[in-house]
Amino acid sequence: MTGSALPADLDDTTVTDAAVASFQDTPDPRLRACLSILVEHLHAAVREMELTLTEWEEAVDFLTATGQKCDDTRQEFVLLSDVLGISSLVENINHRMSPGATEATVLGPFHMTGSPHRELGDSIDDMGRYEPCLVTGRVVSVDGTPLAGASVDVWQADPDGYYDVQRPDVVPPGNGRGLFTTDDEGRFWFTTVVPSHYPIPTDGPVGGLLTATARHPYRPAHIHFIATANGHTPVTTHIFVADSPYLDSDAVFAVKRSLVRDFGRVDDPDTAARHGLPHPFVHADIDLVLEPARREELA
Amino acid sequence: MTGSALPADLDDTTVTDAAVASFQDTPDPRLRACLSILVEHLHAAVREMELTLTEWEEAVDFLTATGQKCDDTRQEFVLLSDVLGISSLVENINHRMSPGATEATVLGPFHMTGSPHRELGDSIDDMGRYEPCLVTGRVVSVDGTPLAGASVDVWQADPDGYYDVQRPDVVPPGNGRGLFTTDDEGRFWFTTVVPSHYPIPTDGPVGGLLTATARHPYRPAHIHFIATANGHTPVTTHIFVADSPYLDSDAVFAVKRSLVRDFGRVDDPDTAARHGLPHPFVHADIDLVLEPARREELA
Repeated sequence: MTGSALPADLDDTTVTDAAVASFQDTPDPRLRACLSILVEHLHAAVREMELTLTEWEEAVDFLTATGQKCDDTRQEFVLLSDVLGISSLVENINHRMSPGATEATVLGPFHMTGSPHRELGDSIDDMGRYEPCLVTGRVVSVDGTPLAGASVDVWQADPDGYYDVQRPDVVPPGNGRGLFTTDDEGRFWFTTVVPSHYPIPTDGPVGGLLTATARHPYRPAHIHFIATANGHTPVTTHIFVADSPYLDSDAVFAVKRSLVRDFGRVDDPDTAARHGLPHPFVHADIDLVLEPARREELA
Repeated sequence: MTGSALPADLDDTTVTDAAVASFQDTPDPRLRACLSILVEHLHAAVREMELTLTEWEEAVDFLTATGQKCDDTRQEFVLLSDVLGISSLVENINHRMSPGATEATVLGPFHMTGSPHRELGDSIDDMGRYEPCLVTGRVVSVDGTPLAGASVDVWQADPDGYYDVQRPDVVPPGNGRGLFTTDDEGRFWFTTVVPSHYPIPTDGPVGGLLTATARHPYRPAHIHFIATANGHTPVTTHIFVADSPYLDSDAVFAVKRSLVRDFGRVDDPDTAARHGLPHPFVHADIDLVLEPARREELA
């Protein structure tokens, strides 16, 4: 019995049409469009690879292990997106900046929703094990107007290459993090330690992928910033340390030339004394330039 | 400082080139080729969708939840692959059968590695709550030669639409499953109950996807088979019940016309008595036709 009421069998290409058609009643047109595009490309990739059953099983196992590696402080799918260049691509698509505005980069997996509030001039290094450095800067609009009362969320690895959440046994939560509010002239300043380049976590499936593909896991040294100000589009970015290794081969494809800054040594005894720093001391100046919000964002 | 030694910034298309290039030292050429194809298509999909950051976060959350839904008896990524038509496509690519050979279909998420060994004629229904039916068949080679000593692994849902592993509290493990060995004439036979159509599990992320896309979760009624014989390519397939609902809209795109069989009522008192069945009784006859193994499989 051949089931004469049945449609024709699906083949390598009609199965793609059938999968796309299965989404035709999706109420949300955006979801329907995205799923159609995704199914077309995933099927095309499978056909082009001529993926074997064993490889399909390996892919299922890899994705499963990636999901199961995630917890409150670890997001392995973000890491996967990062090392495949997808996070960087999504950033590029969504943040086409005006000339002069600070470029956006990936959020990365180490942002915590609650950076500790700190006062201007505070240190974000709670450990005191390494030479402190000074970071100064302003949050300004693209026309140069200083943005008073702007929020500056900062987080970074330490000179050993670790974020606080990676060593909860030896580092207090909030170390290397701070939430600052700019002064009347849009300025912010704090002391910290110069971050090190570091490997992304390699003890999970993404680390296995890097090993299998002979890729190094390193990110060049950087400090993360999110700057938020009234009437402006927030920017999520990194500032990279100019003399760091791996600036030309960031494991997550996030380096932009405009975001590289010198962390140079300055001989200025008065400033050193004012901030309780040795002299000469290391200093980086980092202006964050925001675009006025587009009309739809203000609505 | 603009880092004059740095390469140019990555844009929407050069980030794809950089991601592909990052795999250039992969020792395994097959892995390198697959990753390159996958990255090209994923990036193209992201560009075509103009994926927003919020949608990217939703995608990360969806994939994470999918991985975390998996356990020893639940494989949510297989389900996801199934409802996107990818599993069916992979089957099609890998099982281009000779005319006359039984077509392959997806394994599905409910196969257990250890179906209980049963004797020819045994029932695979350990519950006795529903009318039994008879399944008979032969494992043969494409030229018609019966394959004695072939292994026939069978698993199915019950008339309520559940596999044993879905109701461990009320159904013993192995119910609806059996591993048989064909007799000297390649024959196998057992009694069972006619399976019902059933929904794929909808209490996880894939169920949420079906709801959001107004898709039903049902599979038409079927019995799974894996037939294995010396010197032949094993076949993993389903046999579908001819009068089942959803034959034309299987949630996992696995129906093939050649795999639909009548489960008809037969008035044959002698056969009924021999198998301990009521009469008239329901009977399905299911030959499984294997291809001789290709040379490389025998090597």
